[in-house]
Amino acid sequence: MSFALAARTQRMNPSAIRDILKVTERPGILSMAGGLPAPEAFPVEAIRRASDHVLGTQGAAALQYASSEGLPGLREWVAGHLSRPGWRIDPDHVLITTGSQQGLDLLGKVLLDEGAHVLVEQPTYLGALQAFTPYGPVMQPWAADAEGPLADELVGDPGAAVAYLIPNFQNPGGQCLGEARRQALAQALPRGHTLLIEDDPYGALWYDAPPPAPVASGAPQQVVYLGSFSKVLSPGLRVGYMVMPGGEGDAARALRSKLLQAKQACDLHTPGLNQRLILELLQGGFDLEAHLHQVRERYRLQRDVMAHALATHLPRDCRWHVPPGGMFFWVEAPEHVDTLARLPRAVKAGVAYVPGAPFFSSNDTVKRNALRLSFVTLAPAQIEEAVARLGPCLA
Amino acid sequence: MSFALAARTQRMNPSAIRDILKVTERPGILSMAGGLPAPEAFPVEAIRRASDHVLGTQGAAALQYASSEGLPGLREWVAGHLSRPGWRIDPDHVLITTGSQQGLDLLGKVLLDEGAHVLVEQPTYLGALQAFTPYGPVMQPWAADAEGPLADELVGDPGAAVAYLIPNFQNPGGQCLGEARRQALAQALPRGHTLLIEDDPYGALWYDAPPPAPVASGAPQQVVYLGSFSKVLSPGLRVGYMVMPGGEGDAARALRSKLLQAKQACDLHTPGLNQRLILELLQGGFDLEAHLHQVRERYRLQRDVMAHALATHLPRDCRWHVPPGGMFFWVEAPEHVDTLARLPRAVKAGVAYVPGAPFFSSNDTVKRNALRLSFVTLAPAQIEEAVARLGPCLA
Repeated sequence: MSFALAARTQRMNPSAIRDILKVTERPGILSMAGGLPAPEAFPVEAIRRASDHVLGTQGAAALQYASSEGLPGLREWVAGHLSRPGWRIDPDHVLITTGSQQGLDLLGKVLLDEGAHVLVEQPTYLGALQAFTPYGPVMQPWAADAEGPLADELVGDPGAAVAYLIPNFQNPGGQCLGEARRQALAQALPRGHTLLIEDDPYGALWYDAPPPAPVASGAPQQVVYLGSFSKVLSPGLRVGYMVMPGGEGDAARALRSKLLQAKQACDLHTPGLNQRLILELLQGGFDLEAHLHQVRERYRLQRDVMAHALATHLPRDCRWHVPPGGMFFWVEAPEHVDTLARLPRAVKAGVAYVPGAPFFSSNDTVKRNALRLSFVTLAPAQIEEAVARLGPCLA
Repeated sequence: MSFALAARTQRMNPSAIRDILKVTERPGILSMAGGLPAPEAFPVEAIRRASDHVLGTQGAAALQYASSEGLPGLREWVAGHLSRPGWRIDPDHVLITTGSQQGLDLLGKVLLDEGAHVLVEQPTYLGALQAFTPYGPVMQPWAADAEGPLADELVGDPGAAVAYLIPNFQNPGGQCLGEARRQALAQALPRGHTLLIEDDPYGALWYDAPPPAPVASGAPQQVVYLGSFSKVLSPGLRVGYMVMPGGEGDAARALRSKLLQAKQACDLHTPGLNQRLILELLQGGFDLEAHLHQVRERYRLQRDVMAHALATHLPRDCRWHVPPGGMFFWVEAPEHVDTLARLPRAVKAGVAYVPGAPFFSSNDTVKRNALRLSFVTLAPAQIEEAVARLGPCLA
């Protein structure tokens, strides 16, 4: 008695973050590992009122099967919210997804043949690597200079099939791509055959200045833009969206059609209640801008507390930049420090982080001395204590 | 400027049902096409109260990131609800999915290499064909006799990688697999290398007698069982589940591990609010059995109305069985009637159905003279009128 798994499962390796999160569920551990937003930042009461209203006035529709594209009103909101001069978004080109993680899986399915090249920043979001990997692509480190990934890498024939970029407050690096490099990327794209996936879960979480315009706004026919309500309203509702490439070119039209088919085959549609809750918040009495202002104030303070704690408690030879937004500090310890090997010591000291290695797609670029720390989950006093516990573990 | 799609997209064809549903959104059309449950059967007020309770008492947890496996209490409920002598389900082997459609996609991803053989009933659920197809399998018609699919087809080396079965009130055929054939399938499975996917969205919708025990209960180590809350509570909440094969054999352990990784890469987790709403219904004051009793009464009446209307209005040479459960009548018109070609005439007459052809995986088995009619969406008077409109179109 037996059965066999598909060959692609050999490429799917357990998530390091997953196993670490298990460990950090132990009581007494101060975890800076997960990217869990502070629950105090969720508008629980507003969502409760929205739910009462939605189920009271449109209950049957909210609980019925719905279209794979997503709720028309929500698609219109997304298109209106993102549109700007040079980037007029047709609501028909917005696809609502079950979190933006689903967008990554759908894109992998319709874009990546086995052996296809994908340009990825080093380091990059682990969940993107996990979404793409089953489809068998070759992950190619995206060469970069101090300003960010190089535009020249997007030009060439055939070039990479896909380039994957988190321009705003990158996970895990924390940096924000400057305006000039964004423009250079947008200008390079039409000279090659690479589709850019611009993943932007953190754009609203800026603490110093709003980020520059998306790369998509400069090359809307060659970029898929991914956004999410997870970081600004609630991750547990699992509602994200994708702005598919515009225009009537064959490639763009085929991509839009296949993405919709892939979405339908994956889960038919994103839950209707969840989409309606979010639309009710956006269109009802809830003040999104005021909410975001509060969230930014909270996280800016926590970032500043962590910056101060790192300067106080980490060994002198550790390096980091203070991130201008997002959720993470990326810390590099001296080269001889293997942060994966040090993790058990940290857990014993009552603190957790994510080692840097899993965020790299290549052994040539990996930094085993790096680690990622979230500053959005713990309260300020806990951050101070957590970093104090961490310091000796990196010595 | 261009980019290329993955070769697998050439296998992904637009859904016929999808395009038909678009047409039937026109006002005045009585549609028996979609499998939309009657919205009157949704427990809207109970879900509204559950939502108020969940968001009032566990709001932050409901809106936070959650584990990929699913809510522990809901996994325990599923395990307890399905367990019976011979099939003791470990809650750790239950995976909560974003509808059972997602279960099909995850299984395709971890089980199907390009060229792998999949046994499918003729006809079978279109959404399963759509979920599996991108992974490149060969769909192989599952030979059957009057009692259902043949057990011998599961024995062989290597045999098919996967066999896909809807034992209860099949979509689209409506039939229920008998106890003897279930036992024969369960006994054959351990003699081969085929994993059975037992898809059971309709099991609770019986109108004459409850269905026999699942095949999984006779071969729990070689069956993946898929279930859903869509047909019994609400499809729009998108909560389904998968009971993964039990036991500590290498294949079963590897399958469970890879399915969980695939789930994480697809959407991180099924929305926590939705899982908690359902668990609150199941464990709170809501009487699921009484609700199911009402739903069955409603649908039994509608089935009987449709059976009578078909006998009254369809041409004498059309054939069908009265389904003992589920949502659909499967009608075979005379062989020269192409139901796809007749659809525009029907729509003009103000009625819609799904032509039979898309439910077949092979040109050798396809019945272009068949059609599927849902009896759960329209009220009895509408069913009578819809079938009266349909009759002349099949003459």
